[in-house]
Amino acid sequence: MKEYSVVGKRLPRIDSPAKAMGQAKYAADLVLPRMLHGKVLRSPHPHARILNIDTSQAEGLPGVKAVVTGKDTKGVKFGGWRAFTQLIDQYPLCMDKVRYIGDEVAAVAAVDEDTAEEALDLIRVDYEPLQAILDPEAAMKEGAPRIHEEVERNICWSRFIEFGNVEEGFARSDYVREDNFSLQTQAYAPTEPRACLASFDHAGRLTIWTSTQCPYPVQCQLAAALGLREGDVRVVQPFLGGGFGAKFELFPYEVCCSLLAQKTGRPVKMMYTRQEEFSASRTRHAMKIWLKTGFKKDGTLMARQARAVLDGGAYTSFGPTVTFTAGFFHTLLYRLPNYKYEGYRVFTNKPPSSGMRGIGAVQPFFAGETQMDMVARDLGIDPIELRLKNARQPNEVIPKLTTVNSCGLSECLTKVGESTRWHERQSKLPPGRGIGIACAGQQSGGAFNWFRTRLAFSNARVRANDDGTVVLFAGAADIGQGSSTVLCQILAEELGVRFEDVSIVAADTGTTPVDIGTWGSRVTFQAGNAVRAAAIELKKQLFAVVAPKLNADPVDLDIKDRKIFAKGRPEPSMPFPEAVTAAQAANKGKILEVAGSYHPEGKGIVSPAYSFVAVVAEVEVDRETGQVKVDRLTVAHDCGQPINPMSVEGQVEGSVHMGLGYALTEQVVSEKGEMLNPSFLDYRIPTALDMPEVKIIEVITDEPEGPFGAKEAGEGCVAPVAPAIANAIYDAIGVRVKDLPITPEKVLKALREAQPNS
Amino acid sequence: MKEYSVVGKRLPRIDSPAKAMGQAKYAADLVLPRMLHGKVLRSPHPHARILNIDTSQAEGLPGVKAVVTGKDTKGVKFGGWRAFTQLIDQYPLCMDKVRYIGDEVAAVAAVDEDTAEEALDLIRVDYEPLQAILDPEAAMKEGAPRIHEEVERNICWSRFIEFGNVEEGFARSDYVREDNFSLQTQAYAPTEPRACLASFDHAGRLTIWTSTQCPYPVQCQLAAALGLREGDVRVVQPFLGGGFGAKFELFPYEVCCSLLAQKTGRPVKMMYTRQEEFSASRTRHAMKIWLKTGFKKDGTLMARQARAVLDGGAYTSFGPTVTFTAGFFHTLLYRLPNYKYEGYRVFTNKPPSSGMRGIGAVQPFFAGETQMDMVARDLGIDPIELRLKNARQPNEVIPKLTTVNSCGLSECLTKVGESTRWHERQSKLPPGRGIGIACAGQQSGGAFNWFRTRLAFSNARVRANDDGTVVLFAGAADIGQGSSTVLCQILAEELGVRFEDVSIVAADTGTTPVDIGTWGSRVTFQAGNAVRAAAIELKKQLFAVVAPKLNADPVDLDIKDRKIFAKGRPEPSMPFPEAVTAAQAANKGKILEVAGSYHPEGKGIVSPAYSFVAVVAEVEVDRETGQVKVDRLTVAHDCGQPINPMSVEGQVEGSVHMGLGYALTEQVVSEKGEMLNPSFLDYRIPTALDMPEVKIIEVITDEPEGPFGAKEAGEGCVAPVAPAIANAIYDAIGVRVKDLPITPEKVLKALREAQPNS
Repeated sequence: MKEYSVVGKRLPRIDSPAKAMGQAKYAADLVLPRMLHGKVLRSPHPHARILNIDTSQAEGLPGVKAVVTGKDTKGVKFGGWRAFTQLIDQYPLCMDKVRYIGDEVAAVAAVDEDTAEEALDLIRVDYEPLQAILDPEAAMKEGAPRIHEEVERNICWSRFIEFGNVEEGFARSDYVREDNFSLQTQAYAPTEPRACLASFDHAGRLTIWTSTQCPYPVQCQLAAALGLREGDVRVVQPFLGGGFGAKFELFPYEVCCSLLAQKTGRPVKMMYTRQEEFSASRTRHAMKIWLKTGFKKDGTLMARQARAVLDGGAYTSFGPTVTFTAGFFHTLLYRLPNYKYEGYRVFTNKPPSSGMRGIGAVQPFFAGETQMDMVARDLGIDPIELRLKNARQPNEVIPKLTTVNSCGLSECLTKVGESTRWHERQSKLPPGRGIGIACAGQQSGGAFNWFRTRLAFSNARVRANDDGTVVLFAGAADIGQGSSTVLCQILAEELGVRFEDVSIVAADTGTTPVDIGTWGSRVTFQAGNAVRAAAIELKKQLFAVVAPKLNADPVDLDIKDRKIFAKGRPEPSMPFPEAVTAAQAANKGKILEVAGSYHPEGKGIVSPAYSFVAVVAEVEVDRETGQVKVDRLTVAHDCGQPINPMSVEGQVEGSVHMGLGYALTEQVVSEKGEMLNPSFLDYRIPTALDMPEVKIIEVITDEPEGPFGAKEAGEGCVAPVAPAIANAIYDAIGVRVKDLPITPEKVLKALREAQPNS
Repeated sequence: MKEYSVVGKRLPRIDSPAKAMGQAKYAADLVLPRMLHGKVLRSPHPHARILNIDTSQAEGLPGVKAVVTGKDTKGVKFGGWRAFTQLIDQYPLCMDKVRYIGDEVAAVAAVDEDTAEEALDLIRVDYEPLQAILDPEAAMKEGAPRIHEEVERNICWSRFIEFGNVEEGFARSDYVREDNFSLQTQAYAPTEPRACLASFDHAGRLTIWTSTQCPYPVQCQLAAALGLREGDVRVVQPFLGGGFGAKFELFPYEVCCSLLAQKTGRPVKMMYTRQEEFSASRTRHAMKIWLKTGFKKDGTLMARQARAVLDGGAYTSFGPTVTFTAGFFHTLLYRLPNYKYEGYRVFTNKPPSSGMRGIGAVQPFFAGETQMDMVARDLGIDPIELRLKNARQPNEVIPKLTTVNSCGLSECLTKVGESTRWHERQSKLPPGRGIGIACAGQQSGGAFNWFRTRLAFSNARVRANDDGTVVLFAGAADIGQGSSTVLCQILAEELGVRFEDVSIVAADTGTTPVDIGTWGSRVTFQAGNAVRAAAIELKKQLFAVVAPKLNADPVDLDIKDRKIFAKGRPEPSMPFPEAVTAAQAANKGKILEVAGSYHPEGKGIVSPAYSFVAVVAEVEVDRETGQVKVDRLTVAHDCGQPINPMSVEGQVEGSVHMGLGYALTEQVVSEKGEMLNPSFLDYRIPTALDMPEVKIIEVITDEPEGPFGAKEAGEGCVAPVAPAIANAIYDAIGVRVKDLPITPEKVLKALREAQPNS
C-alpha cells in the first residue's frame, strides 16, 4: 500500500460543523429582499385533457403578483437525455394533457405562502378525464391508450444487450432455472424537500439557488426552457439535504419559479411540501424481472437471460439509463460467457421513475443474488464458494460493454465469510435465525455522454496564494456525500500541502468550472481526477521556477508537507509559499491559477471503473408474526483506495440503511394513480432504532484509473442488502419471498404456502 | 480616429437599472440569519491616555453578545503603506492613547442596534486628557507634544523633489512672485455611509461584505490585523454608493466587526451613522502652500519653488502619497526647467486626512493656476496664451519623475477658449461678471508599489462559453464610477463580440483575480489593460484552432461581430460560439478560460499616463452680499479615447460638482478637534439646483499605454474648478481670495481690503 499524507485519513468533513450547529443554509433558508413565494397547482387526475384554464379569479386575489400556465412558457419540452432528443418529453407546465396526479398545471407568485396557496384554489381548470394506465404490462399491449401520443405501446425506451449465445449456453448447462421477481416503487425521501429561489437581474440574466445535484445540466436545461442562453443562467447550489438522484434533474417548479421571477421582476422562492416531495418528485423504478440462468454441475455459470419491465411513470426522466444498467448489472459480478437481455421502460400515469442511489442496480442484484442462493442450494454448493468460483477478476473485459480494472470481489467474499464465521453458521443456526449473503458492484460515474455535453465531464481550477493557502474551484456539487472534503484531500495530497491549506468554492455555475453533476458515484473519481490534473499542472509550473534555485531538474522535484525538494534529498528545500511567490514573480505578478479536467473518453459506454461489495445479513424471523429483525449486516467493500475512510463508512451506513428499507418496509402505495402514503408517518423508512449493527470491512485495491487508486464508494452497498436479507430469511425459515418489500404479511403467506397444513 | 464597435459607444451602464429601481443591494442592506449588530465606542477626547476600560456593565446588558477592546485584538497596527513599515501606525482599537475625537476605543455586538447603542453608554473609560495639537505649523515646532511617541516634531512624512536649479532659474527670471494659499479640510461625504457584514465559517475563515474600494488590500490588511492568512479572508464588495477615496483603506470598524463575529460565532453587521461618516472617516488634507514662480518677460516659465504643510490628522493613512503628488503636480502642466519642492505632512489630533478624488492635485492646482492668472495679468499676457506658451507637449520627460505620452493640454486650452469666446469676453464683461480659466492634469493610476504587493496590480480572467456568452472575472471594484461597464466594453471590443454577450463577476477576493483596488483613476487604464491582455490571449487560442478550418494563418485572422475571418476576406467565417466549441473539443472538452494581467513596470514612480483638462468658469458676484453665482463651467477634457463617452460625462459632471463645493461652500469646521458640522444640513455640498450649466468638450488623444488609447477620465476635472472660479471672481470684481472656500464673508472682506474707503 502506498503511503499518503492526506489521502486515506479519517478527516472530519468540512461541512460538518456548520451542519451540526444548524448554521448551514439550505435553499429553503434563503431570503432576498422583495422576495415572493410561489406555489404550483398540480393535476388531481392521473390522465386527462386540459380543456381550459381560467386564472382570472386567482390573479384578482390581493397579494397575488403573477400566475403562469403553459401559455406563459416557451412551449418547449425539456429533459436531460439530450443524446436522443425524442426522449425530451416534459413541459414545464402541461400544455394540453396531464399525465399523473401531481403534474404541473399552473403556478402562482404571491406576497406570502398562504396567499399563494389560496390563489391555487381560485384557478379553475376544466379537465376531460382520460383512462388512466397504471400497469406497465397492460400499457405495453397493442391498442392500449397512449400517454404520449407519439409513443407506440407506451414503450418509452427499450434496450437489448447480447453477447455469446444464450441458447447454446443453456443447452450446455447441467442445470437451468427461471424465476420471476417483483420490485416495488421506492421513494427517494431526502431529508430536505426541494426548494429554489430565482432572481433576474436587469440585464435579463437569471440566478437560481436550487437544491440540485447537477448545477450545470440544470443551467443548460433551464436556459433552453426559458429561451435564454446558457451563459445567462447562473445556478448556485446551497447546502443540500440529501439527493439520492431525486435532485438530479431540472424540475418543472424550477422553470415555474424562474418564469414567475421574470414576470414579476422580483425574486421568487418555491419550496416543496413533504407531500409534494413524495408524490410530485421521482421514484425508484418498480420492476418485474424474469431471470433464467444455467450452470454446470460444478457451479460454473454458463448463461443468463433476463427480461425486465420497468414502470416508468409519466415521463422519460433518467429512465433509459436505468433500463440499460438493469441489464448491465447482470453481467458484472460473475464471469458470464453468454448473455441476453431485453428491457422495456413503459409509461404509466404515475409520477416519473428515475435513477435512485444504486441506479438500476438494486433491482437486478435482488433478482440475481437471490437466484444465486437458490442455485447454490439446488446444486449443494456453499453460496460463497459458488460465487468465488465465478467471481469477476481484475482486468477482465465484459464483451461490448466495459473493462473491469481493479476488482476485490473475491477478497470481499472471503473476508465477509471469515468475519461472520459463515461456514460454521450457514444452515446451522437455531430455528428462526438465518444468515445470508449477497454481492453487488457499482460504476464510478458514467462514461456515456447522455447529456451530449461538449465539455469535459469534470473541470477544476486551482489558485495558489503566496501565503500558502490554496483555493479549489470545482463545479462538482456536494450533496451531503462529502465530495467537497474528498476533493480538498485529493488536492492537498497531490500538491503536497496540508488539508487546512485548501478551501473550496463549489457548485456555482457563475464562478466555478463546469461539472456534469453528482450522479452515478462519479464525483470522487471523475472530479477527483480533474482536481488532480490541475494540481499536477500547478506543480509543473512551480517546479519549473524552483528547480534552478535548488540546482535540480524540474522532473526530479517533489513536494511534501509544503516543502519542495529534490527527490531523495530533503534539503535544500523551498517552502510552498515562497515557491508560489517566485512563480508569480517569474510571470510578472500574474496569479498562479491553473485548470484541470477529466473526461471518460475511450472508457466504453458504462464506466471507467467498478467497486464491489459483499454483504452478510443475520436475521431473526418470528414465525408467528412474520416479523423480520435484522441483527447485523457485515459489509466488505472494495472501493479502491478510500480517500476518507470515515466518510466512506458514513456512506456505507447510509446505503445499508436505504437497502434495509427497500428490503423490508419501504413502498410507495398508490390507488388509481394517487400515492396513499406521502408522509414519513405512512411511508416507512427504518429509524435509527431499527438499524442493525453494521460492521464494515475495508478491502483496498488500487484502481489505476482513479485518483490515488480511488473508485466508487458506498452507493454500491444499497443493492446487496435486500437479497442478503432475503437469503438469510430463507436460511432462517426455509421460504423465499421474491417480491419486495418482504413484509410480515408476505412472510406469513409464504410460510402458509410452504406448509399448507400448519 | 480608429473605428471601434463597442469602445467609444454611449452605452447605458450595466448597474443603472438595478440602481434606478432601488434593487441594488448595498452593504447596509445585507442580512444574514442570526446576524448581530455592532457599534463602536469612540473617543470624546482629541488626545488622551487611556487609563482603564471597564466593560462589565455593558457585557451584563441583556442582548449584548460581546464587547471588544484593544486587549481583544492582536495588538498589531495596520495600514496600507506597506512599502515603509514605519508608516503602519493605527491600531484597530486604541491600546493606550486616543488621538482624535472619534478614535475607536471599544466595540459591541448585540441583538439589535438600540441595545448595542445602549451598551456603549455602559462602557466606562478612564481617560487622562493630554494637550491637543490642532495646528500643523505648531505641531512641527521643536518641543511640541508628540502624538505618536516615536515621531519627531510630529512629522508623519516629508518629501522633497528637486530638478534643475531653482536659484539659477529665479536669477535668470525677469519676474518672480510668491504667494501663500490656504486650502480647507474637505469631507468625502459619499452618499452611502460605510457598512460591513462579517461572518466566519467553521473552518475559521472570514467572509466580509464591505463597502470598500479595494477588496484585495483590505483582505491583506484585515488578515494581518486578525492574525489570519490572507487566503482565509474573503472580501466581497456589494454595490457601493460613492467612495472618492473615503473607502480606500481598511477601517478599524471592519476589524472590530470581524473580531465580534469571531468572538460570537455569529455574523455581525456594522453601519456608520452619517455623523460617523463625517467625523470618524477621513478628510481631504487641509494644506498651506507657499509658491514662488519665475518667468521671463515673454511669459516663459523659468523656475518654481513650493512648500506645502499638510494637516495630516491623527494617522498616516494615504498621506505620504498626497505629500508627494502635492509636489509632483506643480510640474505636470507646463514645461518647467527648474523645480524644488518640500512637503511636510504633520500629525494633529484630528481625523486622519487621506487621498480624495483629485488626490494631492486640487491643492497645488489651486495655488498654481491662481498664481498663473496673477502672473498673466502682471505680465500683460492673456491667461490662455501664457498657458499655451508653456504647455506640456506629448512625449516629454519630467526629470526624475515620469514621462508624459499623449497630451492634449494645448488643444483643451484652445477649444475651451473658442467655445467660451474667451478673447472677446475676458476682462470685458459688465461689472460683477467675470470669466476665468484654469487647467489640471491627472494620473492614470499609480506606478509606485506602495502596497508592496507581489502580484500584478491588475488581473483578469475570461471564460468563453460555447453559447457565445463571455464571462469576465475581475478583481476591480466598481465604486459607482462605472468601471464594470467599461471593462465589459473593453473585453467585447477586443474579443469581437457584442456588449450584451459579456457579463462580469467583480470585486470578490474569493472568486475573482487580484486587483490592487480602485484609486487614482487606475481601473479603466490598468484593469482595462489586464482585461485586454486576457482577451488577446483568448483570441490567440481561438485562432489557433480556427485557422486550419478557414485555410488561413492564425496571425491573419480577425474577429468582428462574433465572426472569425481572415483579414480582408469576410468569408468564409466561423461564428464565435462555433469557434469556442472547436477550441473546447481540441482541448478534450476543457473550458476555454484564460487570464491576463497588467503591472505598470518601468513606468516611473508616478503613473504610466496622464489626462488633461481646461475649465472656464463664468460667474456673477454680488458686491453687496459677497455671493458668488457660477453660471457656466466649460470643460475641455483630454482622456485619451473615451471608452464610454456617456460615462465620462457623468464622471466629469460629478467631479465638477465636487470642485464647485470645494471652491465655494464645503469645509469641515471644527473646534478643539471636534467637527461642528457633521451633517448634510451643516456641511454644505452644492445641491442639484446649485449646479451651473456644464458644457463638456471631448479632446480625443490616443494614449499608447492605455487600452484602446484610453486614460484617466473625469477625476482630473475636480482640480481646475476652484482656481477657474477664483480667477473668474477676480475678473468680475478685481479681488483675489487665496483661501478656500471662497465664502461671501471672504469676498466681502477682500472687497473691503481692496477699497478700504468704500
